[in-house]
Amino acid sequence: MKEKSRISPAVIKRLPIYHRYLEELMADNVERISSNELSSMIGFTASQIRQDLNNFGGFGQQGYGYNIKALYNEIGKIMGLDSEYSMVIVGIGNLGQAIANHTKYYKSGFPIIGIFDINPRLIGMKINDIEVQDAEELTSFLEEHKVDIGIITADKTAAQDIADKFIAGHVKGIWNFAPCDLKVPEYVSVENVHVTETLNELAYHISHNDYGEKDVREAGIR
Amino acid sequence: MKEKSRISPAVIKRLPIYHRYLEELMADNVERISSNELSSMIGFTASQIRQDLNNFGGFGQQGYGYNIKALYNEIGKIMGLDSEYSMVIVGIGNLGQAIANHTKYYKSGFPIIGIFDINPRLIGMKINDIEVQDAEELTSFLEEHKVDIGIITADKTAAQDIADKFIAGHVKGIWNFAPCDLKVPEYVSVENVHVTETLNELAYHISHNDYGEKDVREAGIR
Repeated sequence: MKEKSRISPAVIKRLPIYHRYLEELMADNVERISSNELSSMIGFTASQIRQDLNNFGGFGQQGYGYNIKALYNEIGKIMGLDSEYSMVIVGIGNLGQAIANHTKYYKSGFPIIGIFDINPRLIGMKINDIEVQDAEELTSFLEEHKVDIGIITADKTAAQDIADKFIAGHVKGIWNFAPCDLKVPEYVSVENVHVTETLNELAYHISHNDYGEKDVREAGIR
Repeated sequence: MKEKSRISPAVIKRLPIYHRYLEELMADNVERISSNELSSMIGFTASQIRQDLNNFGGFGQQGYGYNIKALYNEIGKIMGLDSEYSMVIVGIGNLGQAIANHTKYYKSGFPIIGIFDINPRLIGMKINDIEVQDAEELTSFLEEHKVDIGIITADKTAAQDIADKFIAGHVKGIWNFAPCDLKVPEYVSVENVHVTETLNELAYHISHNDYGEKDVREAGIR
């Protein structure tokens, strides 16, 4: 088990953004980039970028910029992307299917090894070669397989019950798309994707003639 | 046009959370609640809650707690939920359908008035009584209809082009699910839902035995 991180939550939120831009630069065969160039791409200030990337050691050289591949790999390691995370999805409506289809193409190591639903019309269907199982089977599946991440794309009325099964089944993290907060012990990590809340934020910005995420970025919390 | 808000971006991010919990309390016919009770439900500290809700005037009375309905309505107004926002979706794969189905049931005023795709097999299909139109028709649709929010659930390669059409068509905000950042003029608000980034954050927390969103919440930025 690695040492508990000293990186601030705000930097952690920015890591995947750096990672994504660096990946695009690598795809374009760019080898080095300055903090100023990164700044104009990403929209963070150059000094913010230098400060953030200083967390990860000396990949920037005055006048030469950052070595993109080295920085990409280092950030990937810090993000834990050098490991593989097995995942199961509970709730295979449109959202669950979107996730299943998306992560199938996602190159990093997040294989989906089980898909569950309560709807008899969906049970037995195949999604990316994985057969949808009855959600009743979730507990025994978790006993038999090592699952790192449990994905909840079910109704919010079922979400806590699913989370409890995940916890009993020793998942390490829960990726929760249900519009509710889960009660979990502190050794289980949770990331919520509360889609409706982001729509509400957008309405807020529109109604106040605010500028949305750009403001939030400037405040450094994105 | 309302005055530009003085509320901090961190508070803005918490507004929809308060709103959601208050809605649940109203559904349970609860009339008043203390900051301590809210704290144990939501997980923010009671002093954080009192400080946040002080932004919205005197709905809390020492010893009596907050009037849930008044607070819900006031937060809804501040969030701009007393207005209606017409929306169009471009890209009606699984994710677009999930959004269309979800917002259909979402009680507040976010009607979807147009759905577009480039896939000939999808064009002409009906989703919640709305016929999917050829994405080629987007520009003329925006000329003929007042659209407040444009939703991008298409590939990232198409995202900027769609955003440009939205901007030319005078949308006020863009709800972007494509994994890229959009270049928009400053009078257009953007909310990005970068789903993969949240999975990467979860991997980070798992690999560091960190506690995910709970930490971030404590840092007050959620």
